[in-house]
Amino acid sequence: MQGKKRRIAILAEGFFGDLEAKTASGLIMYKPEEVVAILDSTKARKSVQEIVGFGGDIPIVGNLSDSLKYGPNALLIGITPRGGKLPSEWREVIKEALKNGLDVISGLHDMLNEDSELSMLALLKGAKIYDLRESKKYNKVARGDPALIKAKVILTVGTDCKTGKMITSIEMARQAKKYGWNSHFVATGQSGIIIAGEGVPIDSVKGDFMSGAIEEFLIEKSKSYDLLSVEGQGSIIHPGYSGVSLALIHGCLPDALVLCHYPEREKIKNYEVKIPPLTELVKLHEQNAKPIKPSRVIGISLNTQKLTKTAAKKQIQKTEEETGLPTVDPVRFGCEKLILALQFLKR
Amino acid sequence: MQGKKRRIAILAEGFFGDLEAKTASGLIMYKPEEVVAILDSTKARKSVQEIVGFGGDIPIVGNLSDSLKYGPNALLIGITPRGGKLPSEWREVIKEALKNGLDVISGLHDMLNEDSELSMLALLKGAKIYDLRESKKYNKVARGDPALIKAKVILTVGTDCKTGKMITSIEMARQAKKYGWNSHFVATGQSGIIIAGEGVPIDSVKGDFMSGAIEEFLIEKSKSYDLLSVEGQGSIIHPGYSGVSLALIHGCLPDALVLCHYPEREKIKNYEVKIPPLTELVKLHEQNAKPIKPSRVIGISLNTQKLTKTAAKKQIQKTEEETGLPTVDPVRFGCEKLILALQFLKR
Repeated sequence: MQGKKRRIAILAEGFFGDLEAKTASGLIMYKPEEVVAILDSTKARKSVQEIVGFGGDIPIVGNLSDSLKYGPNALLIGITPRGGKLPSEWREVIKEALKNGLDVISGLHDMLNEDSELSMLALLKGAKIYDLRESKKYNKVARGDPALIKAKVILTVGTDCKTGKMITSIEMARQAKKYGWNSHFVATGQSGIIIAGEGVPIDSVKGDFMSGAIEEFLIEKSKSYDLLSVEGQGSIIHPGYSGVSLALIHGCLPDALVLCHYPEREKIKNYEVKIPPLTELVKLHEQNAKPIKPSRVIGISLNTQKLTKTAAKKQIQKTEEETGLPTVDPVRFGCEKLILALQFLKR
Repeated sequence: MQGKKRRIAILAEGFFGDLEAKTASGLIMYKPEEVVAILDSTKARKSVQEIVGFGGDIPIVGNLSDSLKYGPNALLIGITPRGGKLPSEWREVIKEALKNGLDVISGLHDMLNEDSELSMLALLKGAKIYDLRESKKYNKVARGDPALIKAKVILTVGTDCKTGKMITSIEMARQAKKYGWNSHFVATGQSGIIIAGEGVPIDSVKGDFMSGAIEEFLIEKSKSYDLLSVEGQGSIIHPGYSGVSLALIHGCLPDALVLCHYPEREKIKNYEVKIPPLTELVKLHEQNAKPIKPSRVIGISLNTQKLTKTAAKKQIQKTEEETGLPTVDPVRFGCEKLILALQFLKR
């Protein structure tokens, strides 16, 4: 959507405020001025602020036509179904949006541009479909040479999906500026890409080219910045996504890692896989990085949103004692401690 | 090529006998009756036996038209260029094959079926193009439930690419039959797939679906076999391909692993990455498997082809002393020791 000011209506039917709608809440958190309405009939007539605690008076409406009075020029699919396929009930909303001349922005694995009905409709109405996960252009094997990336690289890794990797990476990029870094956030997932307006949809890239895709992007970005804060994906202990996570570690050639965790979660979401103690996961990440480029976990980021403020502070202290590493919740208390831990990278 | 007897001419121009042409030598080793000629002008008029030490009097010819007198009905691209893109000098050979009504079998990342000139030519001449790495149909996230795979699973892993994972897996599947297993080889790369006639081209699958792709295949195959011997890919310490390797480990949910190594290789091929001692790599694999399903490395497979017989035996003994694990070269001395080490899996 280069050149035109985005006025986005976000489809989040049934899920607004949940982790499942993290694309929606991510955009509201970082680009609230671009969001004109949320579509979720189960929460219609409430405001965004009431549901997620930020976003002010952005309205929630019951359907697409109700959103039109707020003048959107695009519909963003704000929910990520498991597997990334288009649910049939969303098809009608997308068609309605296109019929009204709205662009459609999608982070699904299904490429909406390859759907003949939708692409034809877009053509007829002069609307555009943006597939954020389009990945055909990535066809290079990683070169694996740390000298090619001229900036320092910090990568978030997770004990699971949806543990706060994207937000931690964005907040670190912001905070680092105050400490004299010329820092930049690098998005690797659909939510990050819609916020940043660019990035590498790493989980949609063919296996052989994943590391090469992120490496090439970092080589290019490192010409303009001295610290790249890269959004991690999945977890190296995730039954479905571990390959993506390791490819990112080796493709980024990071100087430092930050481990992100959702404290109440004991098992990988949707699986019978126990999350090992953080100390073990710190070690496992460092052991995996080591053969290609040694990298230390320099801190822990917790998502304490479900805890009281007192409980959150206690959890952070407990984690620091357990791991011996600076621990933050970047949303509640900032991430200064992580940036201080990065100072060793400055020449 | 269901239903018709394959009579294959293999394109291996400039590389026949090298590791780069492992698709060619793999097929000659396991399906020699299907190979009618090799195309490599640098070795024309020699026999296959002279170059690779097996394959008997299969002729090597200088170009496609010279191969026609041996009556091929298909041309197999027997070389794998880095990155899997079609080199322009092969294009003419492929066109010539199609013009002569030959099918074309390709393991390239570039889908020849999507090339309009080639696909049109195939249509006109009634020939077929088989893209072994076609991967669009894989769109499921792994379920991560070991109970769904009804067979025992053994996976080869490597210290690098081209260390003998495919051959070790094939030989284990064969040898296990003699020990009462109803075993089956599962291919995950283009060479394995052309030999087996089926498999999962794991390195061409989108990141999120890699583990799910192999898992689904194994669930299905485990209905007919009690031991699945799965070909591994790459290496978890490979700068370009580590993600594929870890996705296979977690998607296969293996009961046992076999580590494959090329003894003279000290660095990852094409990279400045040192290969750590085998004992460290054994540990790293087991640590990565453990959170999802514990799995032990039960043996080592060495590719000793460049050593004398005496030196090879010495190398095997040295490796056994170093690692404490049964060590074989499956091509030279068989892999019985690995199958004996698997007996603990029998109920």
